[in-house]
Amino acid sequence: MSETAARPEVGAPERLIYFSDAVIAIAITLLALELPTPTGGVHGNDGLLQFLGGHSTEYVAFLISFAAVAMHWLIHQRLFRYVAGLEGRVIRWNLLWLLMIVLMPFTTKLLTSEVDAFPVQFTVYAVNQALAGLFLLLAFADLRRSGLLRPNTPDEVIADAAEFMTAVVLMFAVSIPVAFVTTLAPLCSLLLPVLRMGVHLVRRRTA
Amino acid sequence: MSETAARPEVGAPERLIYFSDAVIAIAITLLALELPTPTGGVHGNDGLLQFLGGHSTEYVAFLISFAAVAMHWLIHQRLFRYVAGLEGRVIRWNLLWLLMIVLMPFTTKLLTSEVDAFPVQFTVYAVNQALAGLFLLLAFADLRRSGLLRPNTPDEVIADAAEFMTAVVLMFAVSIPVAFVTTLAPLCSLLLPVLRMGVHLVRRRTA
Amino acid sequence: MSETAARPEVGAPERLIYFSDAVIAIAITLLALELPTPTGGVHGNDGLLQFLGGHSTEYVAFLISFAAVAMHWLIHQRLFRYVAGLEGRVIRWNLLWLLMIVLMPFTTKLLTSEVDAFPVQFTVYAVNQALAGLFLLLAFADLRRSGLLRPNTPDEVIADAAEFMTAVVLMFAVSIPVAFVTTLAPLCSLLLPVLRMGVHLVRRRTA
Amino acid sequence: MSETAARPEVGAPERLIYFSDAVIAIAITLLALELPTPTGGVHGNDGLLQFLGGHSTEYVAFLISFAAVAMHWLIHQRLFRYVAGLEGRVIRWNLLWLLMIVLMPFTTKLLTSEVDAFPVQFTVYAVNQALAGLFLLLAFADLRRSGLLRPNTPDEVIADAAEFMTAVVLMFAVSIPVAFVTTLAPLCSLLLPVLRMGVHLVRRRTA
Repeated sequence: MSETAARPEVGAPERLIYFSDAVIAIAITLLALELPTPTGGVHGNDGLLQFLGGHSTEYVAFLISFAAVAMHWLIHQRLFRYVAGLEGRVIRWNLLWLLMIVLMPFTTKLLTSEVDAFPVQFTVYAVNQALAGLFLLLAFADLRRSGLLRPNTPDEVIADAAEFMTAVVLMFAVSIPVAFVTTLAPLCSLLLPVLRMGVHLVRRRTA
Repeated sequence: MSETAARPEVGAPERLIYFSDAVIAIAITLLALELPTPTGGVHGNDGLLQFLGGHSTEYVAFLISFAAVAMHWLIHQRLFRYVAGLEGRVIRWNLLWLLMIVLMPFTTKLLTSEVDAFPVQFTVYAVNQALAGLFLLLAFADLRRSGLLRPNTPDEVIADAAEFMTAVVLMFAVSIPVAFVTTLAPLCSLLLPVLRMGVHLVRRRTA
Repeated sequence: MSETAARPEVGAPERLIYFSDAVIAIAITLLALELPTPTGGVHGNDGLLQFLGGHSTEYVAFLISFAAVAMHWLIHQRLFRYVAGLEGRVIRWNLLWLLMIVLMPFTTKLLTSEVDAFPVQFTVYAVNQALAGLFLLLAFADLRRSGLLRPNTPDEVIADAAEFMTAVVLMFAVSIPVAFVTTLAPLCSLLLPVLRMGVHLVRRRTA
Repeated sequence: MSETAARPEVGAPERLIYFSDAVIAIAITLLALELPTPTGGVHGNDGLLQFLGGHSTEYVAFLISFAAVAMHWLIHQRLFRYVAGLEGRVIRWNLLWLLMIVLMPFTTKLLTSEVDAFPVQFTVYAVNQALAGLFLLLAFADLRRSGLLRPNTPDEVIADAAEFMTAVVLMFAVSIPVAFVTTLAPLCSLLLPVLRMGVHLVRRRTA
């Protein structure tokens, strides 16, 4: 049924996918564009090592954001491999998801900019990440509802990816209030396995 | 007929489409490249919130331009899905359309740069947007005239997209003189549904 | 024959083509990245118009370089449409051609940077353009020699594109010594039709 | 066998390949983004030539990094042409490889930044290059182990590419201690043919 319904939209999934990949590729590469390099007043091996050490926050934030964007690409390609067609709402969620991806170099830069406002800086970053995950989940919920997945789509792959993404969204949501109490909020990522198991149990019961 | 005529150009639509997508993907990502982040003299949560609030024009302009570029991509993919082949003039209009897309990060930056010259700033932005819409309409008019659309192309999808784009072009054309009277010119976007209905009625009568 | 010889390289033309398109798309978009916008000290509509007029060289140079890169893309897609396979030398010329494309935002910026050294600035720009054309011609000569073009390749399309590109290379070569005498060297572009006719006649006689 | 095992992942190699190409295309183009152009205080042809000569390190480093990224693309496309499917570990190595590619504009900039700390600057650059090669080799080792190569994969092409990449990794590993003794460490690249022959002999004996 989905195959026939999607006929008039044939070719569309490919174009949305390649467009998404191009946007993600650019965003992930731009993350490295403003990594700090010494512009003057740095001397000798020790001086350079000190400079690099002093900017370790920026380098670590780059690695984390690279991993976040790569993770989004991984989940997207795992899910969209089974997409047979598209309809308006899916495209809209996908574009909103791309908007969040495009903002990641900016929110990463804001997170590491030299302001003593960790709660606000982290909140902007976490909201960006949580919304990215949410929009991808919404895109996928609409794909399912509209019967646009191929008949041979393996249930466990889909459930697995959706559960993981839900746990990521919850983790970032939980970490926001924590950031107002302590700068150790990024440690909330350690909750990910627990949250994932919780999501898994809830889904099983409601299924 | 169109299929045969397009035979020597086989493969060409795909390449133009992917090239266009790559350009659009880069332009849409570069929009976020210069979103302002604090570089010094900003302190505490309140300071950062004030900084972000003080630059809200830039953030809003980014969102509007993101929506504009995404809208262009949406219309382009809705129309080019039915393209069976290409000829010189279509490619030329498409490249001029891409020129306008490539300029959008620049005209967005100009619109929000700190100069008290709203009429000129807005005119440059609106001309950029109006020409982008116009070139896409011209590309599509030539596709139709040359019989390069697939036989199964649904008339209503095409008409719908063309009417919407025509209304967008008219809206930006109308907003330019308004910008010389009031900085509320962006509110002309509220005219879009009215203009669209007008375009629809005119087309129906002339059809 | 070419089809069989190219069998082990199947898929390769597509990847080189898409990679080339991505590089060209980025280079053409980056051209607009540093278009000047006022950063301060500019007031009112007149002030902004004066600012824009004062930087007209940059805007015109952007348009010319956009047209140059777009022209390269046009010729490349017109020729590579008929490519059935690839071999090492063709890939190498194609990569050198991309190197020249990648350098165009830089040489454009150098051309319009505020130095009173037009002969050197223009020479760097013209050498960049001439080498780009030369490498594309060499890639295509090797494609022909290795029998990697499809059997149905129309001779006149190929000859036409090659002649045009040869005329472009000659035009830039000619314009370099002229630039050491007068800043009107860009007017050498008016020679293009003449050079093209000359190339056409020479090719016909030698064919 | 590999064909059947890879069935559920059909389409995946294409998407990883196009995503990789987009990332590489952006990284290779960004290399040229910060090539120095005069911003003031440079006068006349002689002044400009002196400026360009004074920054020759940056221009040469750009060319070397362009060649390095292009070489990575060449090897990647030569190997991935024979890939029939993907599995998790291959994708992970490929993403780590892309992380190294994305870092190359940064490490190139660090290498040529005006700090008198050649040993540290060169080490960061060489580690980046060596890890890029290593991750590509690991991706390919996993492809082989998992039987994800097409049945018609020519052994000598694979062996050749893997040997070359191994020699590159060894060359960069060797050059790091040398950089702490002399700034002539880049001359280690002259060792490449020797290292390659050594790798070839070792592989033959152990095969």
